[in-house]
Amino acid sequence: MNSLNHKRILVAGASSGFGLAVATALTAHSAELTLVARRTAPLFAAAGRLKATAIAGDLMDPELRWADSLTGPLDHVYFAAGAFQPGAFLETDPESLRPALEARLWGPARLLRRIHHLLSPQASITFTGGISTLRPNKGAWITNIATALSDQLARTLAIELALLRFNCVAPGFSLTPMWDNLSPEAREGYAAFFHSRTPTQRLTTPEDVAAAVLALMSNPGINGQTIYVDGAYTIA
Amino acid sequence: MNSLNHKRILVAGASSGFGLAVATALTAHSAELTLVARRTAPLFAAAGRLKATAIAGDLMDPELRWADSLTGPLDHVYFAAGAFQPGAFLETDPESLRPALEARLWGPARLLRRIHHLLSPQASITFTGGISTLRPNKGAWITNIATALSDQLARTLAIELALLRFNCVAPGFSLTPMWDNLSPEAREGYAAFFHSRTPTQRLTTPEDVAAAVLALMSNPGINGQTIYVDGAYTIA
Amino acid sequence: MNSLNHKRILVAGASSGFGLAVATALTAHSAELTLVARRTAPLFAAAGRLKATAIAGDLMDPELRWADSLTGPLDHVYFAAGAFQPGAFLETDPESLRPALEARLWGPARLLRRIHHLLSPQASITFTGGISTLRPNKGAWITNIATALSDQLARTLAIELALLRFNCVAPGFSLTPMWDNLSPEAREGYAAFFHSRTPTQRLTTPEDVAAAVLALMSNPGINGQTIYVDGAYTIA
Amino acid sequence: MNSLNHKRILVAGASSGFGLAVATALTAHSAELTLVARRTAPLFAAAGRLKATAIAGDLMDPELRWADSLTGPLDHVYFAAGAFQPGAFLETDPESLRPALEARLWGPARLLRRIHHLLSPQASITFTGGISTLRPNKGAWITNIATALSDQLARTLAIELALLRFNCVAPGFSLTPMWDNLSPEAREGYAAFFHSRTPTQRLTTPEDVAAAVLALMSNPGINGQTIYVDGAYTIA
Repeated sequence: MNSLNHKRILVAGASSGFGLAVATALTAHSAELTLVARRTAPLFAAAGRLKATAIAGDLMDPELRWADSLTGPLDHVYFAAGAFQPGAFLETDPESLRPALEARLWGPARLLRRIHHLLSPQASITFTGGISTLRPNKGAWITNIATALSDQLARTLAIELALLRFNCVAPGFSLTPMWDNLSPEAREGYAAFFHSRTPTQRLTTPEDVAAAVLALMSNPGINGQTIYVDGAYTIA
Repeated sequence: MNSLNHKRILVAGASSGFGLAVATALTAHSAELTLVARRTAPLFAAAGRLKATAIAGDLMDPELRWADSLTGPLDHVYFAAGAFQPGAFLETDPESLRPALEARLWGPARLLRRIHHLLSPQASITFTGGISTLRPNKGAWITNIATALSDQLARTLAIELALLRFNCVAPGFSLTPMWDNLSPEAREGYAAFFHSRTPTQRLTTPEDVAAAVLALMSNPGINGQTIYVDGAYTIA
Repeated sequence: MNSLNHKRILVAGASSGFGLAVATALTAHSAELTLVARRTAPLFAAAGRLKATAIAGDLMDPELRWADSLTGPLDHVYFAAGAFQPGAFLETDPESLRPALEARLWGPARLLRRIHHLLSPQASITFTGGISTLRPNKGAWITNIATALSDQLARTLAIELALLRFNCVAPGFSLTPMWDNLSPEAREGYAAFFHSRTPTQRLTTPEDVAAAVLALMSNPGINGQTIYVDGAYTIA
Repeated sequence: MNSLNHKRILVAGASSGFGLAVATALTAHSAELTLVARRTAPLFAAAGRLKATAIAGDLMDPELRWADSLTGPLDHVYFAAGAFQPGAFLETDPESLRPALEARLWGPARLLRRIHHLLSPQASITFTGGISTLRPNKGAWITNIATALSDQLARTLAIELALLRFNCVAPGFSLTPMWDNLSPEAREGYAAFFHSRTPTQRLTTPEDVAAAVLALMSNPGINGQTIYVDGAYTIA
């Protein structure tokens, strides 16, 4: 296992949820963290707490001006970006769903091209997929597509940019702030559904996801893989 | 097995390659064929030969005006569209690669929304993926992404639009006209490579792919699946 | 597609269920059928009805004396054998479960070694797996193991005995005679469960499975694959 | 992430290779280790070095008398057992290959039944599979079957014995003592082959495998999964 100690690590989407959990877990390794997020208040709060560098920036912005602030070498990158986007196939204008693909595909692709020269020779990059790849959600078709893109981007880039490593973490349902816009009843409903259908009888936590991401970052033998962190929900 | 006899079937991308092979195979079932393609000369030639209705149209055109000519009920749809698109990750502007996703994702999505009311209640839709999903090509990263989208679109829509069936065929390397722009030496080189790496020691033919597509169309029990027609190349 | 017309085809486990459905479907191609089964009464009845050769024999019998009656060349073989075997992990002596592996692994392996010299150069062999590979049953652990063996046997032999083709069909829940030992209420319960969880809102029929098997037999490009015939149950 | 500190952990097959690497990695967590192996000299040497309890025992022995020495609670179990077993399908008596299934299936199944009452309520169990599941070896068919059994045993038991977690690690080619019986030239040949075909241009090390096993043990969200530690060999 490669130590993560003092490694230089970029977390995109670091102000809450999985990104914040990964950043927090990395502090135990004294990693040199750079956090990127759109929302400045939680970003700067997190960066202060974790003694990390903060860059206010949007992964979806095609210009990526904020990336000019990045310096190398970067040893690892984690992309937490990629929200659940509802939308029934017949009732939603496909054009309105393109942002889901910006977040999972075009945004990471643009940033990786932009910072490729900053990556250390055996850097690892980790994307975030989801259980909807194997068990698609009804009423959120573009999310099902988007999570599968994360898997395939890891597989593709593992071949395309050999020596670098690319992997994906696929979290089960987790009560992250992403779901704050739901009513408490709806949140409870989802939580109860997944709790009852998961063999471990617990929901995925951001800390579980962070531990999986750190395992992928630090293991020089894991490449092109997707790890499900779902308590076996997808096979139950 | 549902008979395909006299079924009304739409083939998008029907002027050559897999689309033409599917249309040709369907004539043995006296299917009522509607062929769509961009290039009018081969389209009208094929339609004449196969006694099919021809519609000159482009799946990538967001307006899809040509779809106004379609009448229902449609029992089955096959999407042959989706070409191999080269491009190294670091050397190609991602924006230039968006057409690959139009062909495999947004185009079929737009057309299916447009013709949904024409589909018979248990219609089947079949997409075309490829072996690059499981064994990504170096130097053609967007193609690897695009073929995986075909698989996932089938899985997603099988859940989203239940009762309809959605599947995907993933052809191995086949000497279709898609490769005509290669030099004869390059074509020979690819053919020899895949021949030597395929346990059956033969290349996939358009007729193999057509047979698989007809099997998916006609079997009411197969749904959300991808069938590889590659002679076991992907596991060898 | 290779025609199945007048092909010489062996069906092991042909007296009922999927085996009988495959044999029946093949009569439309005037195939020369040889049916093997343990239970002589239904075997001879089926053989008479289908104008097939009948051989009373048990795939699990290590001696395989009945195989002496087989003559070549054999163009295709279908193994329908492999029943659902209940048994909770903690409450069932593993030794009592070994027959499940005889039916799916050792029996087919012994027979294929025995008849290898009778197989035509590009013969196909098709095994029967099941949905418990991807969605394991609680309380029937050895069945979950056994269905996965069918998949892997196809993949393995596609590499090991190249030129021959090996595939697997994985049926969803189907009301075959295999379930006759259940009470009517239990059968109804299973049927209702699978009906409600399957996007196509129908159960798999033996005819669906037979159509998939014939598609695998006749397609020279499909090798090392497992086709699920489950209405998308496994992803729903 | 659950800490592994001071956890009680059983490693079966601990005298060399992956088992020894897992045991060694666990000493950094002050885990209370119990090592089981057949060969007493390397077992006792390892146990002395790692300050672990040693039990001389054979996983393949149906009696499992040695398991009487085990005391609970056991928090985690790792099964390193499962060697590469060559044998061409047509030239090897299948009966001679049954030991491969004892090592991967029946042995672990018997031991888990025997020690189930010693397992702590949320114990994890990790099996060892291999790359031959996805890329079968020619000339070693039973090994291809056996590695797939490890994956499926994890999936099955994750459902069957819910609350406990079961996972599998699938190592790429690694120069462990398992290959000591090869000639130096043959070892070099394999190493060069895998080195050239692996995008990371390195072979899997026992330390990589150990890190993946510890990640599976300690992550309460990962269940029913197989992690490939192969540098992306299986998709290249």
